Amino acid sequence: MKKHLPKKIKFAVIGAGNGGQAIAGYLAYKGYQVNLYNRTMKSIKKIKETGYIDLEGSVNGRGKLNLVTDNIAKVIKNVDIIMIVLPASAHKFIANKISRFVTQNQYIVLNPGRTGGALEFKNILKKHDPFKNVCIVEAQTLLFACRAIEQGKIKVFSRKEEVKVAALPATKTNKFIHLIGQAFPEFTPAESVLETSFNNIGAVLHPIPTILNCGRIEDTKGNFQYYIEGITPAVAKIIEQVDYERMLVAKALKIDVLSLMDWLEYTYNTHGDTLCQALQNTNGYYGIMAPENLDTRYIFEDVPQSLVPIWDMAKHLMIPTPTIDSMIHLASVLHNTDYYLSGRTIVDMGLEGLSLEEIKEFVKTGHILDVKGVEV
Amino acid sequence: MKKHLPKKIKFAVIGAGNGGQAIAGYLAYKGYQVNLYNRTMKSIKKIKETGYIDLEGSVNGRGKLNLVTDNIAKVIKNVDIIMIVLPASAHKFIANKISRFVTQNQYIVLNPGRTGGALEFKNILKKHDPFKNVCIVEAQTLLFACRAIEQGKIKVFSRKEEVKVAALPATKTNKFIHLIGQAFPEFTPAESVLETSFNNIGAVLHPIPTILNCGRIEDTKGNFQYYIEGITPAVAKIIEQVDYERMLVAKALKIDVLSLMDWLEYTYNTHGDTLCQALQNTNGYYGIMAPENLDTRYIFEDVPQSLVPIWDMAKHLMIPTPTIDSMIHLASVLHNTDYYLSGRTIVDMGLEGLSLEEIKEFVKTGHILDVKGVEV
Repeated sequence: MKKHLPKKIKFAVIGAGNGGQAIAGYLAYKGYQVNLYNRTMKSIKKIKETGYIDLEGSVNGRGKLNLVTDNIAKVIKNVDIIMIVLPASAHKFIANKISRFVTQNQYIVLNPGRTGGALEFKNILKKHDPFKNVCIVEAQTLLFACRAIEQGKIKVFSRKEEVKVAALPATKTNKFIHLIGQAFPEFTPAESVLETSFNNIGAVLHPIPTILNCGRIEDTKGNFQYYIEGITPAVAKIIEQVDYERMLVAKALKIDVLSLMDWLEYTYNTHGDTLCQALQNTNGYYGIMAPENLDTRYIFEDVPQSLVPIWDMAKHLMIPTPTIDSMIHLASVLHNTDYYLSGRTIVDMGLEGLSLEEIKEFVKTGHILDVKGVEV
Repeated sequence: MKKHLPKKIKFAVIGAGNGGQAIAGYLAYKGYQVNLYNRTMKSIKKIKETGYIDLEGSVNGRGKLNLVTDNIAKVIKNVDIIMIVLPASAHKFIANKISRFVTQNQYIVLNPGRTGGALEFKNILKKHDPFKNVCIVEAQTLLFACRAIEQGKIKVFSRKEEVKVAALPATKTNKFIHLIGQAFPEFTPAESVLETSFNNIGAVLHPIPTILNCGRIEDTKGNFQYYIEGITPAVAKIIEQVDYERMLVAKALKIDVLSLMDWLEYTYNTHGDTLCQALQNTNGYYGIMAPENLDTRYIFEDVPQSLVPIWDMAKHLMIPTPTIDSMIHLASVLHNTDYYLSGRTIVDMGLEGLSLEEIKEFVKTGHILDVKGVEV
């Protein structure tokens, strides 16, 4: 009888930050074989010694890991699903690193991809080997809200009821969801990676209040409630403008996106006459403090991997985004970095020169056909 | 012998805010004949009743006024010098109002003009009557730092040792300084109104910290020290970038301007390794609190009448100013106003279509000559 039982899928988790430890620990606790990778051994030394991760909070239990390593080739060998749980700013690095070792029958899942993550990842793999066709999956957000109490001990604050995912190509989304379904029944299909990418609400909620409170963050070392005190009617006005520009791009791409207001209602069931009121009515935001300084992923991740790809897609579609432009420029000055240059562009996403129809075709099928139906 | 004594010049002061009351009171105290105008009687009711303004602080004494009125024709009748002491956002209104009544032998002095004030004023007068050639003078800043304790009672905190002024045309600057010299020996000549306009440091110090502290201003009702707590290293970085862009434009116009750092040294004798340090070392900035809300002239005056003319001149000279653009755009969103549209442009300044050489010629002589030397 044994041979008829469904094969239990094997996982590699890339990245041992808060999110990576939570996902690795959770999967191992559920009985899956899990390999955990981190770029530096220092951050996983203790986990390697004990061999397990403890979870508490929304999930309680211990997950015993199969392998803990800083060797990318070993960690992904013979696994079915590679869960990337890294700041999006590290996607390029890890894609280049993993490309030689990944095989066609493996799925790579970005948790989350921010904007254009799967497209960029796919494009990098393609450059290394145009004939190796790996399916990249993009999750819209991270399943868990969690924090590491110490190495190997994770506090899980909450677990989302639903996380939208899309495969690239989208024709493989259902197959992927079927495969991972037992482990993550929360994953539900999005139309394509464009939907997961342009519903990236972090693009709106992370950099704008940080930049518009840059003085206060530095002067008080972040000693104010980020959402409750940091987002006043004026800050909310700028946020809404950025959100509006994001939705203009999404609309041009003909994808369903939620406005920030609708997202707050959908995710937290909060309402308000204005965005500022709706945020004030979101209980979960009370007590969340601002970043302690401006060296925060709210800028160094969400500007180059969220705002820049939205900006560049807008440019590609000839949609003006003056508020997003302002934010990218100010972030660039603040961080002495040209985020327009270092961020994720249409070229990085492999969409250069493609028409809207070709982009839609590509995210659906993974192919771009010319007028005669020949792949280009 | 009496007929050989120099004729004592007569003044009209337009605007009875803090600065207008200080200048009117001071001139009257020094024995000049002064008429005071305000658009609404309410703000000058008490002064009209008593007929005088009291000064205390750097200047102590009482100035008896000749006339207090809301009638623009009467206030400027038979005076030699018309001192405009209004937010620059009111210059357009007052230029249109005064145009019918002003005569060729009168000087109009903008205290200060912000950027392009004299040019705009001149352009408006010219539209009303191309043959009436009134000399407009632009002061770089207001002579006094002062505040009204009550109507007719002014606290003068300090008085600048030097204020640069330029006439339009610049060929008349020395004549004007000679005329006003006894009343205001602090006035020293600038090369042209381009110098006074592009040394407008308020363009840099007013809107940027206000916009980058918009959340904190709203959340605390301005309860923090504007320069000391509001300008952190990050805010200073953006300020320096705006300052750099302003100087690029000035350099292209071939005029001498001080950087903000040099201006702090020149004005307050303060130094620092960084702009932020230099500001922290400026004793005069301690205790100055932020505006109580965002309905402040730091935005509604300094964006349209300082940043917009710098931006439009930059565009005219094909100089990119991305940081200034960001600030104008954010201010526009915050105030639900298109400041690009309502602000002072090249067209408002009467410089549309002029080459750099023609602009330089115009501010010097008041004429624009074509290649054959014929006025156009």
